[in-house]
Amino acid sequence: MKRMFDIAFLLAWLLLANSALQPDPLPSWNEGPVKESILSFVEKVTDYESQDFVPPEERIAVFDNDGTLWAEQPLYFQFLFAIDRVKALAPQHPDWQNEEPFASLLKGDMKGALAGGEHGLLELIAATHAGMTTEEFEMIVQEWLATAKHPESGQPFSHMVYRPMLELLVYLRARGFKTFIVSGGGVEFMRAFAEQAYDIPPEQVIGSTGKQTFEIRDGEPMLIKQPAVDFVDDKEGKPVAIQRVIGRRPIAAFGNSDGDLQMLQWTCAGDGARLCLYVHHTDAEREWAYDRQSPIGQLDKGLEEARTEGWVVADMKRDWKRVFAFER
Amino acid sequence: MKRMFDIAFLLAWLLLANSALQPDPLPSWNEGPVKESILSFVEKVTDYESQDFVPPEERIAVFDNDGTLWAEQPLYFQFLFAIDRVKALAPQHPDWQNEEPFASLLKGDMKGALAGGEHGLLELIAATHAGMTTEEFEMIVQEWLATAKHPESGQPFSHMVYRPMLELLVYLRARGFKTFIVSGGGVEFMRAFAEQAYDIPPEQVIGSTGKQTFEIRDGEPMLIKQPAVDFVDDKEGKPVAIQRVIGRRPIAAFGNSDGDLQMLQWTCAGDGARLCLYVHHTDAEREWAYDRQSPIGQLDKGLEEARTEGWVVADMKRDWKRVFAFER
Repeated sequence: MKRMFDIAFLLAWLLLANSALQPDPLPSWNEGPVKESILSFVEKVTDYESQDFVPPEERIAVFDNDGTLWAEQPLYFQFLFAIDRVKALAPQHPDWQNEEPFASLLKGDMKGALAGGEHGLLELIAATHAGMTTEEFEMIVQEWLATAKHPESGQPFSHMVYRPMLELLVYLRARGFKTFIVSGGGVEFMRAFAEQAYDIPPEQVIGSTGKQTFEIRDGEPMLIKQPAVDFVDDKEGKPVAIQRVIGRRPIAAFGNSDGDLQMLQWTCAGDGARLCLYVHHTDAEREWAYDRQSPIGQLDKGLEEARTEGWVVADMKRDWKRVFAFER
Repeated sequence: MKRMFDIAFLLAWLLLANSALQPDPLPSWNEGPVKESILSFVEKVTDYESQDFVPPEERIAVFDNDGTLWAEQPLYFQFLFAIDRVKALAPQHPDWQNEEPFASLLKGDMKGALAGGEHGLLELIAATHAGMTTEEFEMIVQEWLATAKHPESGQPFSHMVYRPMLELLVYLRARGFKTFIVSGGGVEFMRAFAEQAYDIPPEQVIGSTGKQTFEIRDGEPMLIKQPAVDFVDDKEGKPVAIQRVIGRRPIAAFGNSDGDLQMLQWTCAGDGARLCLYVHHTDAEREWAYDRQSPIGQLDKGLEEARTEGWVVADMKRDWKRVFAFER
């Protein structure tokens, strides 16, 4: 009897010691049902003995970028980049003084510049992102990222990534997931920082695209970015792009806006264990608080559907111990 | 003196023993300058001490599929699949009896069916590849692959892959390369066999695409294949698709036709060590012999440019010890 007691004690001690030794993979997430949902999902799909086990090649996780992996206020960062480019290029384009959205933008009237909606935004992006080779564009973006500062935090934009989401990316990859960005942002803009910021290589970044042409100039082949939108990777476009590029339905999807709704629907309608998670911007102090009424990152229908479908909603204020790495 | 001789002898013996112990990574390639070009390229880009060293994340290798990884005669296999589908679907489409290319095809007149050129081909593919979900299409292709036989060899189509190219894929991946298919073939057709045939996952298959729509039917989200061409991944389309999907210039490219020319130009115009290789179909006995005049897999301009640029041309008859695994 004494011996059995000793063995039970030893086992209990080993179990405790073991769990105490396992470092928390998500230290910036507060304990609670949201963190628990993530951990238990990953446990069951990676456990050979679980009936929810998913082989590594099918462990595809997709992440929206703006508002999900990094901030998107007061304006999408790519839009801030475009503004800086318009200012830099304005002397060569006198016509912009009378042409929207450029005219409003040069006057500092953001509301007027945004009046054309998402399409106007993309036109602006096309105009400031075209007429150069893909390699030249990458250099321009990298130069901007190295010098530009966020208008409110004063931090370099690469510091505006969410620490809890970085931990999540690392955790998922450590458990055999392949992590993809699937974002409305321009694919080449995102690739200029995704590898360094998120450890996500260019071939795992899916985004909106502009038209490009292959040309041979003075015997040298080059790809020239054209001032025309090719594909908008938003809303219904997201599952279409996922199928076209990845060719496999993800088992986990992370977003923050109605633009991600169809991606979450497509992901979570698949068979077997699935994880769909919305990041809900609720923290006006450490970040920004916005949802149903926001012109940027609107989350309205998605919030309803998350309730109906039982998706996970991460409340930034409640669930994140820390938002940015630069916080004290 | 005796001691130095002993040491030199020992070293020479060790070197010899070492090279004898290293298994040949390309046993189906005959010894000669072509095999040597491949081996020496891979050696130098993977050797830390070489000035041509390329870090693993940049070791992108792209392969055309039809005529490069598997055969394409007497017709592209996807076209043979489409013919079988037209025959299977004809009873539901009485109009096809008077409509090209269907009418010619149903009469067994391949020349007439092909008269519309590549665009006609793609129309045919769109008509036989649409009106169903992506998952239904995958099942149709897999069923066909499991039962259909090549009209001349009598082998299942999955046996029509080139053994030397399979060895090359395995060798490159073992040396840290990421291998992609970049082909004019339909991306979803190729994905149905690429993982099993080549160990290339769906997200590393780039091809021509048809339009798809995201729809919710009876509460279930689905992607429906539409009867319209979205993108033709051939000629100038290849570097454009590489940039859009991979976002990095490959360092090695393998093709067999003029449709691959721009992909090879784009790849080999980059800085540093590069490998561009054309598979030249010269073996009428073990495979097929065709190049400048062939309506399928025409290799004319490419052959000229290979000479001018010093690209490697693999002569199937001379350089391949064995073409197919089923050969005696």
